[in-house]
Amino acid sequence: MNRIGRYTIAYNNQPAVAGFGSVAGKKESEGPLKEYFHKIEYDTKLGCDTWEQAESMLQKEAIQIALEKAQISGELIQLAFGGDLLNQCISTSYSIRGFNIPFLGQYGACSTMVQSLILAGLMVDGGYCRNSLAVTSSHFCSAERQFRFPLEYGGQRTPAAQWTVTGSGAIVVSQYGNGPKLKHCTIGKVVDMGVTDINNMGAAMAPAACDTIKSFLKDTKTKPSDYDLILTGDLGKIGSQLLLELLQKENIDISRQHNDCGMMIYDIEKQDVHAGGSGCGCCGSVLCGYILENMCKGKLKNILVTATGALMSPTANQQGESTPGIAHLIHLEI
Amino acid sequence: MNRIGRYTIAYNNQPAVAGFGSVAGKKESEGPLKEYFHKIEYDTKLGCDTWEQAESMLQKEAIQIALEKAQISGELIQLAFGGDLLNQCISTSYSIRGFNIPFLGQYGACSTMVQSLILAGLMVDGGYCRNSLAVTSSHFCSAERQFRFPLEYGGQRTPAAQWTVTGSGAIVVSQYGNGPKLKHCTIGKVVDMGVTDINNMGAAMAPAACDTIKSFLKDTKTKPSDYDLILTGDLGKIGSQLLLELLQKENIDISRQHNDCGMMIYDIEKQDVHAGGSGCGCCGSVLCGYILENMCKGKLKNILVTATGALMSPTANQQGESTPGIAHLIHLEI
Repeated sequence: MNRIGRYTIAYNNQPAVAGFGSVAGKKESEGPLKEYFHKIEYDTKLGCDTWEQAESMLQKEAIQIALEKAQISGELIQLAFGGDLLNQCISTSYSIRGFNIPFLGQYGACSTMVQSLILAGLMVDGGYCRNSLAVTSSHFCSAERQFRFPLEYGGQRTPAAQWTVTGSGAIVVSQYGNGPKLKHCTIGKVVDMGVTDINNMGAAMAPAACDTIKSFLKDTKTKPSDYDLILTGDLGKIGSQLLLELLQKENIDISRQHNDCGMMIYDIEKQDVHAGGSGCGCCGSVLCGYILENMCKGKLKNILVTATGALMSPTANQQGESTPGIAHLIHLEI
Repeated sequence: MNRIGRYTIAYNNQPAVAGFGSVAGKKESEGPLKEYFHKIEYDTKLGCDTWEQAESMLQKEAIQIALEKAQISGELIQLAFGGDLLNQCISTSYSIRGFNIPFLGQYGACSTMVQSLILAGLMVDGGYCRNSLAVTSSHFCSAERQFRFPLEYGGQRTPAAQWTVTGSGAIVVSQYGNGPKLKHCTIGKVVDMGVTDINNMGAAMAPAACDTIKSFLKDTKTKPSDYDLILTGDLGKIGSQLLLELLQKENIDISRQHNDCGMMIYDIEKQDVHAGGSGCGCCGSVLCGYILENMCKGKLKNILVTATGALMSPTANQQGESTPGIAHLIHLEI
């Protein structure tokens, strides 16, 4: 069995990140990570008719960049995993349509980048394919319209609200290569602490992140200081604080190693994004830009990436349901 | 490599179906497969406040039956794959919430039963878990409201329209066991032939089914007559006819082996369901009822199940996009 402890899976054949691509929008380019995105799109519609089509285009570009960096053609990708926030995951089905790659659509809300990477890695690790792909995206305009208000309405944002990142990330995983290796993963459970405020996704996701990180450390018998970085996807300011507190209660202190893509991608104060960035594209574009670039440069060597998802549905919320969270973790090393 | 040909994966360790559960609604119980559902729910709300919660309840019941038949507790399931048609896959995240099982949400529209089973099987085959779970559902009332019209509106149905099955299917896959074995799978690509009629899902899905079945037969160097049954998920009357014609053009004749869950679950003429049944719960409840029961009895020995999904989004459709299809195939033998 390729398992360690109760919840953690070991990649015994250590598949490698062979290529990665990160694309982001204008607002993201005004934040501190600008130089790490491989492509920046200043037009919210990318020349398309709709924001939904534009989001799909972000994915196509990220996939193209990842393929180029991996120096392989789409034909050699034997399986793709991906998803997004839009109903029926349309950004992904329409982006993958053009690539002629066998595809399994994923839904993990904002945890989708890591969820897809975990599966892309397991398929290579298990010898089910030589090269696989993981991709995700989000777009501020398409997400706001679907989950909250039409942009034209000019709705006020609460202090706990997060700003959906316009961006995409894609990763090619291969059997061999010099890139960062996939070492372990921990797949999370649905954790529901009864949060019903759809403008406080960080609070809905933090308990799931706590549960998954705790399971991983216990299963691998490691401690936070064994890692250069313990990254979360898009907990933002409020969710990150909550995560540190929840882990403290379990006698786990990750405050020195922790950072959050949602807090890194924007200059939170100057850019008026309230609690920080969110969306599948947040972890997607930060992981496939800043993080993997720094791993390839040797500045980061041994990291944990825990992407969190708020399984939030406007319909269920209107029906009085709380928003469950989920968090999946991948351990990367170079 | 555990691959055969270009698109097909072999389950070299042949994981087994250890348990399965099928739950259906009142209309489904009035069709020819009544005796094969393990549980029938006559109240569309199952005592819940909303149809969405009722759909989640169908899944919980199917999972419970599958666990009982497999004679294991939820605690021993190390990974669950599942999804449904509702936005943000809420039926599944709310059903899995109560089981405390690591979970990866799937979105493949009506192909979700086979998509989830493929992955649940690969995880056991690769030694990543001992027992895994695949689950899906659909509900006529929640699906109509989301994809077409509120039921109260009493919208007319076109002749090509299909009736969303109220039902759920769940399968426990284990390393060992006497149940049907997972032999091969073929994961499909997104195939788009430009269908824009959201009331003709069969036509949108048939080309994908053709592509996947053709790939499987080529990769495995087998012919239709090698199988007792070549089952499709929910092509219905129109899509099934189209599939036979498309395969004929490729010199593949499956007319003697083919059947479709969407045509089997209802008495199409008497029950006024136009082109037949559809929805994730269609393939889910037929596979986990009639089909697997007949495999266990030895009446079916060697079958292919190709579940098809129309990746249909009301938003994309209103924006003039066509509806792509996808189809995933699993080969089961006992």
